Amino acid sequence: MSDSDLQIGYQDAVPLACETDPAWLPLALERFDEVLCDHAHCEKKAASQAISFLATWPEKVRLVQAMSRLAHEELTHFRQVYDRIQARGLVLGRDPGNPYAKALRKQVRADNEATRLTDLLLVCALIEARSHERLALLADALPDEDLRQFYAGLAQAEGGHARLFVQLAIQYDERNEALRRLAELSTAEGEILSALPVKPRIH
Amino acid sequence: MSDSDLQIGYQDAVPLACETDPAWLPLALERFDEVLCDHAHCEKKAASQAISFLATWPEKVRLVQAMSRLAHEELTHFRQVYDRIQARGLVLGRDPGNPYAKALRKQVRADNEATRLTDLLLVCALIEARSHERLALLADALPDEDLRQFYAGLAQAEGGHARLFVQLAIQYDERNEALRRLAELSTAEGEILSALPVKPRIH
Repeated sequence: MSDSDLQIGYQDAVPLACETDPAWLPLALERFDEVLCDHAHCEKKAASQAISFLATWPEKVRLVQAMSRLAHEELTHFRQVYDRIQARGLVLGRDPGNPYAKALRKQVRADNEATRLTDLLLVCALIEARSHERLALLADALPDEDLRQFYAGLAQAEGGHARLFVQLAIQYDERNEALRRLAELSTAEGEILSALPVKPRIH
Repeated sequence: MSDSDLQIGYQDAVPLACETDPAWLPLALERFDEVLCDHAHCEKKAASQAISFLATWPEKVRLVQAMSRLAHEELTHFRQVYDRIQARGLVLGRDPGNPYAKALRKQVRADNEATRLTDLLLVCALIEARSHERLALLADALPDEDLRQFYAGLAQAEGGHARLFVQLAIQYDERNEALRRLAELSTAEGEILSALPVKPRIH
């Protein structure tokens, strides 16, 4: 059976172990310019990560097709966010790094190519799911109608990306353990997020 | 003056120090499947390089705008090449690396941010100019009409990217030496290419 013949059934929302700290939203609204700049970096890194998947596993057809489409979409989002940064007269600075994503990536089992792929896909699923949660919070609370609509659209897209990553993890997981592993990593994600200070960033 | 106010006048074809070895085209036509797979990797790396520019110099508005558009376009090209790889029943393997681009990148002066940016932009201009030359050779010689048209379109795009990179090098070059440096790097590019064996690859 070729990659593209496989049908994947995961359509649920990707589960998060905890909700975002209630202190995050007021801070994010108050210092929205910083959130916007962090958001641009997130979209850029999501595009890079998608290209990295297809560079590392070029023989996996559905992965390559999905990741090249995804990289394209993340770059579109980057440009949309960057246009808003420009319109607000902000200057995008160097990416200060992301302790949340860094800690989550440390959970990836690098023993072999298969576990590495499964875990990387699931880590990306969880980052997208967390983005979905937070962008939806912004979409409900931002005072500007254009930004509300913009973030509502992006939140929906991030939810779709989260499901896509889980679907790919299920498809390529040779040990049939993707959903069990998702539950483990979701617990880790909640612990990592709770241990970090609340900041005006997407994560 | 903001980045986007600057007008850049470089519209010429980017000069190459030598033409491609006449042995290249017959080999590329005979082993076109290998050229096609190498081409996919080139488009992918061009997208990654564009993202790398905007990640390293996020404060340079015109660079960020141009590189996010370019990354988008290179990903479109990657997908078009990948579709043809699929249609021919080929499997894209891991990128074996590119000694040509690696040698050319060694020419980049890393003393400071400014010379590094100038040289990186000019190296990219020369890689695009060489791609333009070779894709145009393929466009003239491939037996399949669809592929001829496809490569004619891509050759034109690569020529435009080469000019864009020179324009950006002129814009951001603080020492007013971009065209002098382009001539130096073009000589180096010719020497590097001539010293490498002729292979069924884009470079």
